[in-house]
Amino acid sequence: MGLDAYLPIWKQLTKEDQQALEEAAVFRSVPKGTIIHNGSADCIGVLVIKSGQLRSYIVSDEGKEVTLYRLLERDICLFSAACMMSSIRFEVTIETEKDSDVWLIQTEAYHAVMERSAPLANYTCQVLASRFSEVMWLMDQLLFKRFDARLATFLLEESTIEDCDTLEITHEKIANHMGTAREVVTRMLKYFQEEGMVSLTRGGVTIVNRAKLDAKAG
Amino acid sequence: MGLDAYLPIWKQLTKEDQQALEEAAVFRSVPKGTIIHNGSADCIGVLVIKSGQLRSYIVSDEGKEVTLYRLLERDICLFSAACMMSSIRFEVTIETEKDSDVWLIQTEAYHAVMERSAPLANYTCQVLASRFSEVMWLMDQLLFKRFDARLATFLLEESTIEDCDTLEITHEKIANHMGTAREVVTRMLKYFQEEGMVSLTRGGVTIVNRAKLDAKAG
Repeated sequence: MGLDAYLPIWKQLTKEDQQALEEAAVFRSVPKGTIIHNGSADCIGVLVIKSGQLRSYIVSDEGKEVTLYRLLERDICLFSAACMMSSIRFEVTIETEKDSDVWLIQTEAYHAVMERSAPLANYTCQVLASRFSEVMWLMDQLLFKRFDARLATFLLEESTIEDCDTLEITHEKIANHMGTAREVVTRMLKYFQEEGMVSLTRGGVTIVNRAKLDAKAG
Repeated sequence: MGLDAYLPIWKQLTKEDQQALEEAAVFRSVPKGTIIHNGSADCIGVLVIKSGQLRSYIVSDEGKEVTLYRLLERDICLFSAACMMSSIRFEVTIETEKDSDVWLIQTEAYHAVMERSAPLANYTCQVLASRFSEVMWLMDQLLFKRFDARLATFLLEESTIEDCDTLEITHEKIANHMGTAREVVTRMLKYFQEEGMVSLTRGGVTIVNRAKLDAKAG
């Protein structure tokens, strides 16, 4: 499968625009642990992830890292082409967390098509809004964090009750327990999983790092 | 002056699209202290600010508020029409901090034009990227805050040195003092001003709330 299968608005593009994107795209296999993009130092192009896992994070002057979000199969990374949007005035670092296969679409070409193509511009807006939403979620956690602490506490308590690290419980059920929506629970559990505290299976949650979960519970 | 003077890409729109936006726009004078938009409860439309000042903030379940950014003359507010972009999955509150004159462009009409118009879609992307940048700046402050503390300390020390609340010092000079760029200083001083800690004048900075600046200095 080519690039066309990974850009959902492909069929809305003109033949000319499809060709321009295809000609500007190179396929790359990037080994785990590679820093693909580093702040404003480069502007390599838009990444379309075919497989693998990328992490986007910010770094303080003192080297403290904070993960903003992860990019998985079919995600698009715009910030590696941040120079094409003058309004992007912040810097993120992007690295591969797993061996990854990506298409790299050269910045100028992507930008040229976006300027003239309403479908690509609208799609890019949606991608940007998605990332923005992820960062806002994180911001909310950082500012008001309470639900994560509550969920961590809940998991630890259930584990004590069952005397087992693996809880056979659905997200729906946890949501009911905690008086919140299922999707809120799912999102937080995925975050816990990414942070290595739990492992999610069909219909279950396993605590894999009790100390970290304890710390989260406060 | 009409809406055309406040949307920089107006001339790039087709006559049809211009007409569609104009017909969907109503002019409103909104008194200070009005909550224009409140989370996902409404989706009134895109706001184009003619004059005044709006504040966008998030609120915790416990009622704690955190200001994300401010909107001034010629700014565009997209989040009051967040429902038009399914990827926006967060909620902000927007209120007028001063009496404000705005155009309100009905959500469906704006969205319809954006879907077919590359110039409006690209412009909307830039607006979104601007807000994203402001939030990332705030995030950086929240996570790694040190420069603000350093700047607050610097201003208090200078004030002690001069034995005066008003410092006659340029942003350039402060930047040199602190080993950073002038624009970094300007941005932070504006933030301090918005927070009511200092007041900025041509070539000077006046401390107006010493207690708050002290707290910032840590």
